[in-house]
Amino acid sequence: MKKLIGVIGSGQCDLDVQNLAYQVGLEIGKKNYGLVCGGLGGVMEYAAKGCHESGGLTVGILPQEDAEYANPYIDLAIPTGMGVARNLIIVRSALGLIAVTGRYGTLSEIAYALQLGKPVVGLNTWDISEDIVKADNPRDAVDKITKLISS
Amino acid sequence: MKKLIGVIGSGQCDLDVQNLAYQVGLEIGKKNYGLVCGGLGGVMEYAAKGCHESGGLTVGILPQEDAEYANPYIDLAIPTGMGVARNLIIVRSALGLIAVTGRYGTLSEIAYALQLGKPVVGLNTWDISEDIVKADNPRDAVDKITKLISS
Amino acid sequence: MKKLIGVIGSGQCDLDVQNLAYQVGLEIGKKNYGLVCGGLGGVMEYAAKGCHESGGLTVGILPQEDAEYANPYIDLAIPTGMGVARNLIIVRSALGLIAVTGRYGTLSEIAYALQLGKPVVGLNTWDISEDIVKADNPRDAVDKITKLISS
Amino acid sequence: MKKLIGVIGSGQCDLDVQNLAYQVGLEIGKKNYGLVCGGLGGVMEYAAKGCHESGGLTVGILPQEDAEYANPYIDLAIPTGMGVARNLIIVRSALGLIAVTGRYGTLSEIAYALQLGKPVVGLNTWDISEDIVKADNPRDAVDKITKLISS
Repeated sequence: MKKLIGVIGSGQCDLDVQNLAYQVGLEIGKKNYGLVCGGLGGVMEYAAKGCHESGGLTVGILPQEDAEYANPYIDLAIPTGMGVARNLIIVRSALGLIAVTGRYGTLSEIAYALQLGKPVVGLNTWDISEDIVKADNPRDAVDKITKLISS
Repeated sequence: MKKLIGVIGSGQCDLDVQNLAYQVGLEIGKKNYGLVCGGLGGVMEYAAKGCHESGGLTVGILPQEDAEYANPYIDLAIPTGMGVARNLIIVRSALGLIAVTGRYGTLSEIAYALQLGKPVVGLNTWDISEDIVKADNPRDAVDKITKLISS
Repeated sequence: MKKLIGVIGSGQCDLDVQNLAYQVGLEIGKKNYGLVCGGLGGVMEYAAKGCHESGGLTVGILPQEDAEYANPYIDLAIPTGMGVARNLIIVRSALGLIAVTGRYGTLSEIAYALQLGKPVVGLNTWDISEDIVKADNPRDAVDKITKLISS
Repeated sequence: MKKLIGVIGSGQCDLDVQNLAYQVGLEIGKKNYGLVCGGLGGVMEYAAKGCHESGGLTVGILPQEDAEYANPYIDLAIPTGMGVARNLIIVRSALGLIAVTGRYGTLSEIAYALQLGKPVVGLNTWDISEDIVKADNPRDAVDKITKLISS
């Protein structure tokens, strides 16, 4: 079965964060993991782009009712029609998650992940718990999450 | 239509927090609001007890598939069978929320509420955003949330 | 705890069906049950109107994200933001259901109810299983469902 | 983006139906479609087996909270933790559906599909609407659904 790493973060972000997300996705694909995300723009789009380009499968769990809302780098769209309730499905589908910046939507995902006992690595994200493992850069983030989900 | 205030917090808590939650519920009922919560134990149970005793309607949005899991002070049980995805339905059903302590489940509810732009008043809870209005005691919390949802 | 009877049926219907739904709601309130429905128009609205007028509590489980979409006879709105996934929550919240006419949305609710082993009484609705108890008129429907959920 | 055909049917079934489901899955993979199903046993398992063996991607949208409940032929598990509410997500993720036998759970999926206007092809399944296109055998079913979703 395909092993998925979740990438969560803001739906809108500046160039620096786009690049961070892209590098995270690239590393995930290189390590032969799949990526699961919310399927929309910003961090979700750039992480999916990176993973798609390095040969990884990208899964988008969409809030909308229809697959056409997915960004162009999503290989597999799951349109839930459940709005932000889909945040929990992203978390459940991932073995562990990397949070790249993020606002309140991302915070709901971090909270669910920690409640369910799933590892969370953070790149410039919410600093609300010692349960979030900090990473220095995209490669470090992917190294850390892959170790955490393998142990 | 019945106006509901959400009360969120830990499913297990000590006597001091039980009393805080009870007083919050009592004040909600006195002010003729209904209370919506997760329907289970701890803060949910004591807040429902208070509201029920002061004549307010208590609604429990349950993670389980069956109403029998509701605490004894729930007047109306909505068993979702959707696990913690029900957290979002609690938030959507409330005009505003009072968080009493709480762990990661409560954090997911606070995050959803702030994402949706609903007012949140905090009593000894997560201190993660200036968007959470701090209260000194149960009466202060209910005063503040009722003002926020009326404005 | 309030005992709820679900009323399901088309969101748009002619005068005859509106009257059927209204009579069903009226009988539910007279027997001191609450009513749970999808909270919108057609059968949902007229059943809620009847129940509300005979003093019963009416609960609307809405597909939308906001309570304002409820019809005017809903006492308690639960806006799920989950689209027609809310059909299952209506079924879970009811002890038994009365189907008044209905199209595919109603059929999904009947299917869920029968899958979960909840009694279903039908008034001029889908004739797809002997598990649906047929009723001759609104009073007969409410008599039959109240007997089924009490046994 | 991967195009998915949904296969729905009973979680327990006899050898004849297992073979029908297996043949349906085989044809789906041969035509380079992916398969989405409920991820559990019976029709879901044998259809996934067929599709997996002919090189198609298999997606299982699970009712449970954890991927470990998926049958062995699921390439990608989406554990929703939402019980049978996941039926709707199967329907939304598919361009069209093939129903192989089935009981009330399958009926809820057929109802949702027809409500959303998605094509449904039936193999020995519920005969409740002319909107369900009947097929004579697995190859015929897959031929018919692929034509319907391409038009």
